[in-house]
Amino acid sequence: MEMQSIEKVEEEVERVVEQAKELQDSASSLINRTSSDEQSLRQRALALDSNIRRLRSSLHSLPSKLADKLEDDLHRATCLIYDGDASSFLPNKAHGRFLRMFIGPINVRASHKDVQFKVKEEYNSYRDRTALLFLLFPSTLLILRSWIWDECLPAFPVQLYQAWLLFLYTGLALRENILRLNGSDIRPWWIYHHYCAMIMALVSLTWEIKGQPNCAQKQRGVQLFLLWAMMQGVAMLLQNRYQRQRLYTRIALGKAKRMDVVWGETAGVDGQLWLLCPVLFILQGFEAYVGLLLLKTAFVGVVSEWQVITCGILLVLMAVGNFTNTVQTLMVKSRF
Amino acid sequence: MEMQSIEKVEEEVERVVEQAKELQDSASSLINRTSSDEQSLRQRALALDSNIRRLRSSLHSLPSKLADKLEDDLHRATCLIYDGDASSFLPNKAHGRFLRMFIGPINVRASHKDVQFKVKEEYNSYRDRTALLFLLFPSTLLILRSWIWDECLPAFPVQLYQAWLLFLYTGLALRENILRLNGSDIRPWWIYHHYCAMIMALVSLTWEIKGQPNCAQKQRGVQLFLLWAMMQGVAMLLQNRYQRQRLYTRIALGKAKRMDVVWGETAGVDGQLWLLCPVLFILQGFEAYVGLLLLKTAFVGVVSEWQVITCGILLVLMAVGNFTNTVQTLMVKSRF
Ligand SMILES: CC(C)(COP(=O)(O)OP(=O)(O)OC[C@H]1O[C@@H](n2cnc3c(N)ncnc32)[C@H](O)[C@@H]1OP(=O)(O)O)[C@@H](O)C(=O)NCCC(=O)NCCS
Ligand SMILES: CC(C)(COP(=O)(O)OP(=O)(O)OC[C@H]1O[C@@H](n2cnc3c(N)ncnc32)[C@H](O)[C@@H]1OP(=O)(O)O)[C@@H](O)C(=O)NCCC(=O)NCCS
Repeated sequence: MEMQSIEKVEEEVERVVEQAKELQDSASSLINRTSSDEQSLRQRALALDSNIRRLRSSLHSLPSKLADKLEDDLHRATCLIYDGDASSFLPNKAHGRFLRMFIGPINVRASHKDVQFKVKEEYNSYRDRTALLFLLFPSTLLILRSWIWDECLPAFPVQLYQAWLLFLYTGLALRENILRLNGSDIRPWWIYHHYCAMIMALVSLTWEIKGQPNCAQKQRGVQLFLLWAMMQGVAMLLQNRYQRQRLYTRIALGKAKRMDVVWGETAGVDGQLWLLCPVLFILQGFEAYVGLLLLKTAFVGVVSEWQVITCGILLVLMAVGNFTNTVQTLMVKSRF
Repeated sequence: MEMQSIEKVEEEVERVVEQAKELQDSASSLINRTSSDEQSLRQRALALDSNIRRLRSSLHSLPSKLADKLEDDLHRATCLIYDGDASSFLPNKAHGRFLRMFIGPINVRASHKDVQFKVKEEYNSYRDRTALLFLLFPSTLLILRSWIWDECLPAFPVQLYQAWLLFLYTGLALRENILRLNGSDIRPWWIYHHYCAMIMALVSLTWEIKGQPNCAQKQRGVQLFLLWAMMQGVAMLLQNRYQRQRLYTRIALGKAKRMDVVWGETAGVDGQLWLLCPVLFILQGFEAYVGLLLLKTAFVGVVSEWQVITCGILLVLMAVGNFTNTVQTLMVKSRF
């Protein structure tokens, strides 16, 4: 190589090292600057929030009409803080224990509204994908059972299915916790519901699947469990359809003017809700029924393992919780 | 209330609403500004990175002494980009499938080095907490077995333990994936190792725990499994001690001058490694032995469920993988 081009390479390397140093400096100054800007916004948001609280508590002594108007104004300001871009600077809601146990203290809040919508949408499509499997998997098992397996489920496919359920519910519970941290108003119960379902899947994994003779009778518990699972699939599909449409309405509105979202968001899908709910109630009744059947099999029948009793109790508990929470949701909605 | 103070409240509310709007504007402009700054840093980092690559490939035609020096310079520049503050602006390593399946596409990268250290430290203390339980839980089971339970483990506590293992390994695998995204150099195998352990815990949950008569013989598999688990506890405790010290050395150095960290980081703990490794090798040999014993019980003994065979194969696989990866780590380290 010629002397000249060697020198050129040397120079280039020197320049690159220089640039790397500069880059490091810019990066570190950007990080510092951003974090101090964020700090000051955080303080402003907190101060404003406590100001609003203070003012709100002083309204009651005003003439009622004026109080209503001012209350409305304050509500609008609160919405702006909590639903607007400032929300990402409010102190993090504490990580729930569940999320902490699985992924530790890492920050999972997205600072951009767009990203938040994307996370929600991914959650919805995850549910869609799984809802179908939810229907297919247990129904295949049940069909094969009476068609090929001579009323006697083999252990392995059922256990595979139960392991899949466990994995699925864990994923749902984690995602919902993350959504909550990102500002979703999801009721805590729907998350607890998935904890219960996780426990149920785990318990059912340890549940011994007995074979012949007298298989149909011994496997009554497993069979009921599969029925419940199919039903969950139906509920999920319906709910997905409704919630996906709700999100789209919301994105459409949110793009135009965020404030309307808070009050009029369900406008387009309210009708659907009144159609969805009776179906949900029937499914919830069926859930309780399956739970009670399980308890009955455990107490009078041949199968009396603790697993059957636990699953029965959990199902009844979930049915009651689902019912009360659906009713409460409807009540809140009809108030507006 | 007097007219005057009513007016004052009205004014205050108006001001608060105004402030909320201002806050929203500042927040949204900060977010936009930051994201465009980040964008430009990202481009600079990428351009520089590809420049370095290009230069590196042109070095071979230089006289070897000069090439070595320039290679060193380029290496320093690369370290500055990948280990410095700029690293948080390099394009995200793609989420692994595992993380994606559980928590979806949410960003889990911390942009501050401090936070990254904190995450790592939390991971270490999580491991510490569990390593103790890892020893206590199975050894209690084994002691009670010969002391109270008359050589016959009851199913429930063993299953509880297996469920705990499943949960634990899932948590570890998730955290390690997150650490990797945050720039840890953890070898992929250590993560796969935890996937294998997860599968093993899941499989062992479906493993029927038979009772009397002839219990000691039928439960041979479970017993071996518990022995393996205790051994894991010992390995974890030793490893934790070593890795914790390594992190501290690193933080201490990292605070002073980051560049030294990259080359001389293990200086203080290298001695420990040579002490740790023989112990690890013995444990890995024992792991393979337990695996082979399991396979033997499955093929010649009374217990021939598929669960025993699967666990045996997984254990041998893990032992081989652990061994080769430990050796490779040592080889890489001794090269410096
Ligand atoms: C009743 C129901 C349709 C109401 O849905 P909704 O109109 O979205 O309810 P809300 O307005 O209270 O929703 C608030 C938030 O919680 C979320 N949410 C509501 N119910 C949820 C559920 N079951 N699972 C997960 N998220 C839920 C919504 O998506 C919304 O999130 P966002 O704030 O991020 O937009 C819904 O809760 C539901 O389907 N419940 C029944 C579930 C059930 O019983 N399943 C089992 C049957 S066996
Ligand atoms: C051999 C060993 C001690 C080397 O550890 P080390 O010196 O930290 O290895 P490296 O320098 O390659 O580590 C690179 C990174 O991987 C991490 N790492 C290494 N081994 C790890 C493991 N087994 N689990 C999790 N993380 C590990 C380190 O913490 C380091 O992370 P960082 O980049 O964030 O600092 C370690 O890998 C080990 O203990 N392996 C044996 C494990 C085993 O066999 N267990 C079962 C026995 S039955």
